[in-house]
Amino acid sequence: MLNSVRFIQEGDRGLMDREFMRTVTWDYTRQQVRMIDQRLLPGEYREVSFESYVQVAEAIQQMVVRGAPAIGASAAFGMALAAQNSTTSDIAEFRDEMIKAAEVLQAARPTAANLTWAVARMLQVVEDPEIGNTGDLRIAMLVYAQQMADQDVQINKKMATHGANLMKENETVIHHCNTGALATVDWGTALGVIRMAHEQGKNPHVLVDETRPRLQGARLTAWELERYQISYEIITDNAAGFFLSNGSIDRVLVGADRVASNGDVANKIGTYMLALAARDNQIPFFAVVPTSTVDLSLQEGKQIPIEERDQGEVLGIQFFGEQAAPKGARARNPAFDITPHHLITGIVTENGVVYPPFESNLRQVVMAGQH
Amino acid sequence: MLNSVRFIQEGDRGLMDREFMRTVTWDYTRQQVRMIDQRLLPGEYREVSFESYVQVAEAIQQMVVRGAPAIGASAAFGMALAAQNSTTSDIAEFRDEMIKAAEVLQAARPTAANLTWAVARMLQVVEDPEIGNTGDLRIAMLVYAQQMADQDVQINKKMATHGANLMKENETVIHHCNTGALATVDWGTALGVIRMAHEQGKNPHVLVDETRPRLQGARLTAWELERYQISYEIITDNAAGFFLSNGSIDRVLVGADRVASNGDVANKIGTYMLALAARDNQIPFFAVVPTSTVDLSLQEGKQIPIEERDQGEVLGIQFFGEQAAPKGARARNPAFDITPHHLITGIVTENGVVYPPFESNLRQVVMAGQH
Repeated sequence: MLNSVRFIQEGDRGLMDREFMRTVTWDYTRQQVRMIDQRLLPGEYREVSFESYVQVAEAIQQMVVRGAPAIGASAAFGMALAAQNSTTSDIAEFRDEMIKAAEVLQAARPTAANLTWAVARMLQVVEDPEIGNTGDLRIAMLVYAQQMADQDVQINKKMATHGANLMKENETVIHHCNTGALATVDWGTALGVIRMAHEQGKNPHVLVDETRPRLQGARLTAWELERYQISYEIITDNAAGFFLSNGSIDRVLVGADRVASNGDVANKIGTYMLALAARDNQIPFFAVVPTSTVDLSLQEGKQIPIEERDQGEVLGIQFFGEQAAPKGARARNPAFDITPHHLITGIVTENGVVYPPFESNLRQVVMAGQH
Repeated sequence: MLNSVRFIQEGDRGLMDREFMRTVTWDYTRQQVRMIDQRLLPGEYREVSFESYVQVAEAIQQMVVRGAPAIGASAAFGMALAAQNSTTSDIAEFRDEMIKAAEVLQAARPTAANLTWAVARMLQVVEDPEIGNTGDLRIAMLVYAQQMADQDVQINKKMATHGANLMKENETVIHHCNTGALATVDWGTALGVIRMAHEQGKNPHVLVDETRPRLQGARLTAWELERYQISYEIITDNAAGFFLSNGSIDRVLVGADRVASNGDVANKIGTYMLALAARDNQIPFFAVVPTSTVDLSLQEGKQIPIEERDQGEVLGIQFFGEQAAPKGARARNPAFDITPHHLITGIVTENGVVYPPFESNLRQVVMAGQH
């Protein structure tokens, strides 16, 4: 399924100096969706292309691409691919095909709000009564997906600026999972804030927690920080509490996969305990999220569906080259947890920083973006 | 340095059915200290023997043996080995040699109270005015080390009984690190409680957190639970908060490396965040510790020295067979953290279960054991 379109040897320092492609893009030459295969980083940088929306759904499920905003953009391009591959000129039939594609893409991962959000917006285009034929719909869907991707980058830069304005010089920040360019179309959410603070000359230092089971911190965030030449050290997830309690840390920054209307945050597993440790030591804890991650239809976090992934992600870990767990061991593998809003200092969005009471203030910034 | 005295192929199910040797023993045939090499489990069961106290100190430092009570017993046998290898018949010279050995053994790892405690008790034998010659001292030291090892097993069984009496049928327990037979001379502390509950027919189920960086949960605790045929599943350390907050968990059980007189507990890194999550969900959190782990000379946890180990323990983790972190990445690796006493429901000792106020109640059970 995966076509290697480029391969660069590990350790090629030229990688660090040039501009990368976006995490997910439309390839206008081949009319395909192209992504960086994030499962191979940092050892190998490889771009892969997809010819059908089913392949895009599989890529989301298998975490070729991950990160709520990047999943949203991928799904939008997946819908554009479904439209392009449709051969019907019957508009009702076309719409039925698009609804089916939407269902497949939505089912790829259950937790991220942006997936549902992006697919719903693409379906609005499909249902647009102003567009009278399938040819125009195909074009409109691609244009809209591209706009959403471009908008994601702009939104991230706004969030980065709002977040970086909160930061002082020489802060040490704990960061969970990967929330950088690789988790979005480009630039990032929480890591975007750190990158902006770095560009402002504020000299941030990052404790990157490794983020078991898939190690997005140790692999992807560390890789991005190398690229941006931002100072960092990797810690185990277990070690966050130690550093939060010994006065080393100024701030915790995380992203989110879905935010309920009361401010409860679903994010990568481990976020909840990190927030508890931040609160116990009065360290500011901020979630950095585009308003597309806020799901106003849900009152509270416990309504957010939590994906449980394959136990192989847990059991695959090795110790000195051998599988750590005994043969035949079983594992549980929830991919996200819920951080209750009372543990969150503030939520950084593209429309500004939201503070408690989140119930009213979150609704306000989400609505602000819709006018 | 390590002599393989026995080698059994991985997957030999016969292993599960027979009695193992103790984690650390004196080999009366060869006059050596023998240990199970815990770095190789569960893939390989291997016993290794040591001929000098310097080798024993290295084995403690390199974590051939780990777990506070097992380290204590190893250090006691290390002192007996130093005595046996001494060639002097001058008692003052002999005592100087023993003090030097005590210093080397104590320096092997800084956090565990039992190391200091065991070496101090061996030095009391060395200083015994009733013993008038070095030959008698050599014998007395070996006898005393053997008594301490035997006593450890008896103490663990008492703790296991006190702890198991707290447990109801069909409890699901989160367990951190390894606190079983492998962390002691035999039987275990927190895992001993679970094993006793199992033997009482209470059918416990264990969520074994993997315990990065050295994975003592996924490797050693899972291996022991297989052997005892106790039901378990492995989780990442990050996932504990998810299960604690969704009503799955009845109890958290951990060991400790040192307990201050106010009840603050130094234990394997990650314990503090686990305790925070237990408290946030009103789940009972118990530390299971012999009184030899209680250091009444320290008022509070922040006085306990925290070992920071080699960053290779963090950076060595692989993802799909490749090193996860970018080449050249650096890491921080504190091995322990402090759980403040107010997060602890109770401390199970061989002399009974201690509840708050710990300051007075802990002192009482420690003193009770000394009379």
